[in-house]
Amino acid sequence: MQENSFYPPIRTLMGPGPTDVHPKVLQALAMPTIGHLDPQFVTLMDEIKGLLKYAFKTENELTLPISGPGSLGMEACFVNLVEEGDKVIVCQNGVFGTRMADIVRRLKAVPIIVEDPWGRAIDPNKLEAALKKNPDVKFVAMVHAETSTGALSDVKTLTEIAHKYDCLTIVDAVTSLGGSKLLVDEWKLDVVYSGTQKCLSAPPGLSPVTFNQRAVDLIKKRKNITSWFMDMNLVLGYWGEGAKRSYHHTAPVNSLYGLHESLVLLKNEGLENSWKRHERLNSILEKGLKAFGLEYLVPKNERILHMNVVSVPEGQDEAKIRSDLLNNFNLEIGGGLGPLAGKYWRIGLMGYSCRMQNINQVFGALGRFCLNGVNTNFRPEFYLPSQQI
Amino acid sequence: MQENSFYPPIRTLMGPGPTDVHPKVLQALAMPTIGHLDPQFVTLMDEIKGLLKYAFKTENELTLPISGPGSLGMEACFVNLVEEGDKVIVCQNGVFGTRMADIVRRLKAVPIIVEDPWGRAIDPNKLEAALKKNPDVKFVAMVHAETSTGALSDVKTLTEIAHKYDCLTIVDAVTSLGGSKLLVDEWKLDVVYSGTQKCLSAPPGLSPVTFNQRAVDLIKKRKNITSWFMDMNLVLGYWGEGAKRSYHHTAPVNSLYGLHESLVLLKNEGLENSWKRHERLNSILEKGLKAFGLEYLVPKNERILHMNVVSVPEGQDEAKIRSDLLNNFNLEIGGGLGPLAGKYWRIGLMGYSCRMQNINQVFGALGRFCLNGVNTNFRPEFYLPSQQI
Repeated sequence: MQENSFYPPIRTLMGPGPTDVHPKVLQALAMPTIGHLDPQFVTLMDEIKGLLKYAFKTENELTLPISGPGSLGMEACFVNLVEEGDKVIVCQNGVFGTRMADIVRRLKAVPIIVEDPWGRAIDPNKLEAALKKNPDVKFVAMVHAETSTGALSDVKTLTEIAHKYDCLTIVDAVTSLGGSKLLVDEWKLDVVYSGTQKCLSAPPGLSPVTFNQRAVDLIKKRKNITSWFMDMNLVLGYWGEGAKRSYHHTAPVNSLYGLHESLVLLKNEGLENSWKRHERLNSILEKGLKAFGLEYLVPKNERILHMNVVSVPEGQDEAKIRSDLLNNFNLEIGGGLGPLAGKYWRIGLMGYSCRMQNINQVFGALGRFCLNGVNTNFRPEFYLPSQQI
Repeated sequence: MQENSFYPPIRTLMGPGPTDVHPKVLQALAMPTIGHLDPQFVTLMDEIKGLLKYAFKTENELTLPISGPGSLGMEACFVNLVEEGDKVIVCQNGVFGTRMADIVRRLKAVPIIVEDPWGRAIDPNKLEAALKKNPDVKFVAMVHAETSTGALSDVKTLTEIAHKYDCLTIVDAVTSLGGSKLLVDEWKLDVVYSGTQKCLSAPPGLSPVTFNQRAVDLIKKRKNITSWFMDMNLVLGYWGEGAKRSYHHTAPVNSLYGLHESLVLLKNEGLENSWKRHERLNSILEKGLKAFGLEYLVPKNERILHMNVVSVPEGQDEAKIRSDLLNNFNLEIGGGLGPLAGKYWRIGLMGYSCRMQNINQVFGALGRFCLNGVNTNFRPEFYLPSQQI
């Protein structure tokens, strides 16, 4: 019996990620594989580092993609910096802060949790209070854009506070990179990690990271990094400067073709233009979702604009609706995690998914369920494509 | 200024990996991304698990691809099993045994090194002697096919010995899976990891692993696994049985499309047929390389047939030749690592690279350097394609 090839359905991806991948990026993935030490591949690596610096708005030398998904990137940042016994403040306002604390514990370091409600930004006053109370804290970890709740935190202010107490910051920018304003150098963020499958619109599987000089100095002094794979001292032998690269692991060549192409698209659009597109199109989506009677979990001024976390209409079976959207409209939106499960949807409009066609998909498909008796003031005119879109 | 897309040169990959990727696998990579919790993706995951069981010759339930390159798979096996203070015998006969010992040390466990010369198989007698001397050893780690030297070890016998002393074995099968005989269940190997970029001919970036019940029982009892990302107790929530999968990390969707297709190709060829093809075509390559006057590092009965580690002709600048092969013939072969650097080449004939056209490439290109004064008895007839090839 012959085994069959797999042919995926053609979905519209508007969950928390992955997002739709641009056809050029898909094409790039399929280019013939070359060796991970091929001089032309080394050129590609250098270009990727340069493009990531552009996307992160940083001049940090140590800026590169970790060869694994965003959560491996998260772990890599902690593993390289945090030692056994270190105290780490973890600002928790959703799933990813919780994961950070788990990683800190596994490193036998001590997480000090600063908690905010799911759906709210991190409160700088709470962080400052915790720092005052714990003068021996070394690191403050925080999520810029909490994918699980849709809350965007002011990591610039939080980092300023952390620095006042001589702490380094570790910042999760998985969902913000490329879609929300993120200025690594200007905001003086020390360590930042991200993912490829959100606003960069490359497939999942790589994790861009950037470390400033202060973080690099710390890493260079480390003697007991528990992971061989993630040890940046070793990774740098392969990704570092110069033409000579020593073998560490075999880089995921084709995935890096894809990341490169997605960064080329970002740079050619212009980072600020991409931020503006995310803002503009999401404001259209917002109007529609509100017209349907859906309510946002997060107050506007604390919101990730491109991650719309909205209430499920009362009395509706949210899982059934999501499954109907997927099966009948090939439209994926996300369900809620943890305490938000069953009550909220997460509708992402990110990266290549952030375009008018996708908004129309949501309005068309979701409208079937929401218009009925909930709100009939919905007028399609305002979302018709026009010059200002 | 517009950024440019990257277009790789079209190479023939005959180094230690990555190997040439089949056009169907490249095509699969470029299929539209779907969500990592999409029911159709869950079906794909189940198919991949089944196909990996076929490739590993195992019924182990815990058989899946780790979302990272082979060396992350290596680390994952140790991280899940080895605890602080555990004694681990590491059989070392090349680069990868050395790396295993490094990982064991980072876990604050105690590696006991059983050393064999680079280019030789692991000596079962030395292992047994070490086990006798160290009755409290818990694990024995070994490399089936040492890519750095070309040596193939008898992991069946080594595992029998380890089991006599109540140890579990951790086996590196990165270069053997799909190309050399490997019978995980029949040989009673406890934990095995591999890579995608060798005989499976998928791009690098994923690491198939398999754990038997005894290993799973150990992992389920672990309380202090240092890595969140690699903790198989968590990974299984996503990759485990049943339709319900809980989010752990975002799987590298498109890379998994590629792996699936490469496994479909392997199954449709037949695993045993693939082993035979590797043996048959490598015997042709061997005749030619010997006719050129190149000498094998590894004695035939200890050799990975598809990893030809051969001496650089005396007086030749090996790096210059490799770079000439790459620049003028688009042919990649590998240099030596560690003590073999400058003295040996590593010529892989694996996976989709293991075909007559590639042998011809080597003969044509390498012949330019080797024929001149070294050996002129080389006759092309014997390698012409014929029915027995």
